[in-house]
Amino acid sequence: MDKNKTSVSQYLLYRLQEFGSKHMFGVCGDFLLGFINQIYKSPVTMINCCNELNAGYAADGYARINGLGAVTTTFTVGELSAINAIAGSYAEQVPVVMIAGSPELRHARANKMLHHTLGDYSIAREMFRKITVACERLDDPLHAPQQIDMALSRCLYYKKPIYFELPADMVTAKCAKPGKFLSIVKTSNPDALAEALSESLHLLKQAKKPIIILGMEIIRHGLQDIVKKFIEKSGFPYCTFVTGKTTLSEDHPQFIGCYKGGWSREYVAEVVDSSDCILLLGGFFIDSDTGGFTAHLEKSKLIQANFEQTNIKNHTYSEIMLSDYIKGLTKAVSAGKLPSGLIPAKTALKDQSKVKVTSGKKLTVKHFFKRVASFLNEEDIVIAEVGDCLYSMAGTLLPKNTTFISQSFYNSIGYTVGAALGTSFSKKRRTILFVGDGSFQLTAQEISTMLRYDLKPIIFLLNNQGYAIERAIHDGPYNDLQPWRYHLIPQALGGEAGINVHTEGELESALKVAENAKKLTFIEINVDKYDFGDTLRLAGSAMAESSKNSYD
Amino acid sequence: MDKNKTSVSQYLLYRLQEFGSKHMFGVCGDFLLGFINQIYKSPVTMINCCNELNAGYAADGYARINGLGAVTTTFTVGELSAINAIAGSYAEQVPVVMIAGSPELRHARANKMLHHTLGDYSIAREMFRKITVACERLDDPLHAPQQIDMALSRCLYYKKPIYFELPADMVTAKCAKPGKFLSIVKTSNPDALAEALSESLHLLKQAKKPIIILGMEIIRHGLQDIVKKFIEKSGFPYCTFVTGKTTLSEDHPQFIGCYKGGWSREYVAEVVDSSDCILLLGGFFIDSDTGGFTAHLEKSKLIQANFEQTNIKNHTYSEIMLSDYIKGLTKAVSAGKLPSGLIPAKTALKDQSKVKVTSGKKLTVKHFFKRVASFLNEEDIVIAEVGDCLYSMAGTLLPKNTTFISQSFYNSIGYTVGAALGTSFSKKRRTILFVGDGSFQLTAQEISTMLRYDLKPIIFLLNNQGYAIERAIHDGPYNDLQPWRYHLIPQALGGEAGINVHTEGELESALKVAENAKKLTFIEINVDKYDFGDTLRLAGSAMAESSKNSYD
Repeated sequence: MDKNKTSVSQYLLYRLQEFGSKHMFGVCGDFLLGFINQIYKSPVTMINCCNELNAGYAADGYARINGLGAVTTTFTVGELSAINAIAGSYAEQVPVVMIAGSPELRHARANKMLHHTLGDYSIAREMFRKITVACERLDDPLHAPQQIDMALSRCLYYKKPIYFELPADMVTAKCAKPGKFLSIVKTSNPDALAEALSESLHLLKQAKKPIIILGMEIIRHGLQDIVKKFIEKSGFPYCTFVTGKTTLSEDHPQFIGCYKGGWSREYVAEVVDSSDCILLLGGFFIDSDTGGFTAHLEKSKLIQANFEQTNIKNHTYSEIMLSDYIKGLTKAVSAGKLPSGLIPAKTALKDQSKVKVTSGKKLTVKHFFKRVASFLNEEDIVIAEVGDCLYSMAGTLLPKNTTFISQSFYNSIGYTVGAALGTSFSKKRRTILFVGDGSFQLTAQEISTMLRYDLKPIIFLLNNQGYAIERAIHDGPYNDLQPWRYHLIPQALGGEAGINVHTEGELESALKVAENAKKLTFIEINVDKYDFGDTLRLAGSAMAESSKNSYD
Repeated sequence: MDKNKTSVSQYLLYRLQEFGSKHMFGVCGDFLLGFINQIYKSPVTMINCCNELNAGYAADGYARINGLGAVTTTFTVGELSAINAIAGSYAEQVPVVMIAGSPELRHARANKMLHHTLGDYSIAREMFRKITVACERLDDPLHAPQQIDMALSRCLYYKKPIYFELPADMVTAKCAKPGKFLSIVKTSNPDALAEALSESLHLLKQAKKPIIILGMEIIRHGLQDIVKKFIEKSGFPYCTFVTGKTTLSEDHPQFIGCYKGGWSREYVAEVVDSSDCILLLGGFFIDSDTGGFTAHLEKSKLIQANFEQTNIKNHTYSEIMLSDYIKGLTKAVSAGKLPSGLIPAKTALKDQSKVKVTSGKKLTVKHFFKRVASFLNEEDIVIAEVGDCLYSMAGTLLPKNTTFISQSFYNSIGYTVGAALGTSFSKKRRTILFVGDGSFQLTAQEISTMLRYDLKPIIFLLNNQGYAIERAIHDGPYNDLQPWRYHLIPQALGGEAGINVHTEGELESALKVAENAKKLTFIEINVDKYDFGDTLRLAGSAMAESSKNSYD
């Protein structure tokens, strides 16, 4: 083989691991065998999942920790099973590379009625085009390197998924070796930037009670350090949206908590509502970030700086990069101190670790989440499924350097089981998963893959006997579930049975086991059917109100 | 309420049950709660599934037995998880109605960043448009009845899926009550029909060894009786493609077996290959129907009659309806008798019921499928998953009036677990499912829904420790699976443990239990890792050959 050449598949795999994706999640399939074979010969480790949706979720969770994730499936039947995961990555801004192995080009050219196809070979690809920032068919080895690099540069710049179709006969086709990778670099319009900074600084200077809110883009675009410098120089208090939770360590003295509009802790709502200048960095007006649109973030006092544009009150500055904007603010803002009397979250919530345990007492949702708060360690990856797990954890103060993961915008239930598989490859950090019974039933089999690769997440399965969040909106028999013996699932999947917990005392024993475990720990937490956390109850009523027209 | 009015949701539900869909499969979700609430007030029974893909598969299986199936999910996150099932129904020509509950129209009009959405509210709908024959958003109660009827008439005519988006505030919006339903009726062009019939009859008359092959369209369009009359009057021998298996009862004296090109039983291949006039009714040149394109169906001796057109040799007659064509042939063909010496399948395969059992002997794939053939009863619904289950069952002669179901064209593994859920609602017929371990891992949780609704399928889980079909193509560690304790799955899902079978004797006991069971029976069949049925071995080599360019 020409030493200046490589193959299309090895080129792609080289680039993936170069940018952080050292594992590939996927499900084997016949048009894909050649590519999977090549993965085993590459620096990328193949992780064989139970199904494609879960593999997609795993790639998403992996990308949130490692900067890039990848998933591979066979044509149509495989990729369409994963498409919801990729749509989730698109909505939540997660850089995931989807690779579908397709039939040899000669079949596609003849439009042969081959299994796994729909006659028209472009259908699945054109679906993916709608939820990716690049969608390429690698059907020419001469151009494949350029296609791969261009697509990947968009993935890394926009932090959104891309799609490759890899025909079986292109897997080993020869192409140029990887050269210098050209990243996308956009610069701010200097005049627009200067004007926006000047106006912003004027407003912030005038303000008596400025507050910063951090949204999802700060984490996604890796701007945590830049934001931290600005916060610390300015002395302004800050809070986060749910999507921005753990942007910075939550013990930060300027952090007052998680802001969720009308669903916030009273003090946080008070500080934000009484502010005369709100600086929203990297955030959007998503219902789940604004307490179902109950947030009163009036435009007259709002500066909203996003990835490529800044809005002040009712006008927009485009061509402003968020990093330039924050750096500019940091440079020009007067050094300030935290206002006296302000209560940081770490002070307000310091009693969350004080939990009284009564051995035989039946567990409640409140006790569980309060108790588990002090079980968490620094550096943990904490994953919370949509529902009471998310609502309860969003209000919990997390230890230093934890990473909080939840699909709190897209809300595809079952996501976290796959995501926890993806994050569990972080060797030095524990993955702690909180998942409800209803969500777990969608994707439960992926516990199998954790067992297969000897991963060691700690899984808390909150069994409240149904879709609690739906019950809180509108209850009916459709919110009931078949009562699984959840703790027996790991055993049926080839591991050992989990721990079944009903009382406060049993929880203490289970936490001890988890703390010392050298393998996956699965703990079923049994609570009452109508035992909701406070935020879930609030959210449910609000959602019921907003959809009341659909009942009679 | 105006007694001449109903609601959009009740209109839709009325039409669904009118055409056979008395059950609705789906997963609860917040934009869908209003609609699900209405289902509970309607003649349609809601079946709450574990996840949306499985619900889609269930609707497909249900439709194959009942003439129409329906599945409902919430917006985007739910529907995209089901899209692969709907694509499967599109490929395999199964009439399934997909209903996605979407946010209230006021949110859509404002393009609000609501959870479950992608900002652009049309993305999922436009994906479904590619794999449905009608795709409607029910956003106006005045037009909804017409939209529903037009879409449903296309679904029932083409036997392909349709899609409805139902905004939450349209669920109870008032509309006209259902009136007379206008089905699509197309008539043949009489001149084209006469010409095609005349040419066909001439060829059939000249032929010394005519043979009929039945493809998937006969079952799909309910033409079994019409075809039976033609076959019996003509006296021609016939075989079926895999997609046409059990079009007529397999004990028919003119039935010689399943034709699969080069993978056929020797005698069947011989009869077809030596024929001088092949009449293919309702069939397509699908790889899985033609033994991976190894069938020698030369155009010079081929008449291919499909749903709306007939091809003779190299020319095409359009505007000919298959039913008119077959009826025309029946009327004009001379009454004939089965050629002497021809060996019907029921004679050739009569020894399949003679199985010698050696109690302690380790089970093999061959013994299992041979033994199980005589376990099957008349009227059974036999479902075989892609892989060795499909290959082995395709060659098994099934009892009178059995229905054979497999996704043998689209080949989405895991399909059958959902499909068996759907068919199990047939109260008078047993559902017998044959599924491999690899496929089962994708959709295993739907056993839960069978338990929840007290359904009684008999499930044979063929545990050959991996993706046998992929092993037969190209083996590697990616064909291994996490070793589940499959028989413990029903127990973990809230039922009782299944039966674990390793020997011929244990199989006998298990079959006895199954025969007398009043509830779901789950039997794990353990065989060796490289123990393949003959057809699987053949198919694997052929597929390996056709994709050899992807390995190095």
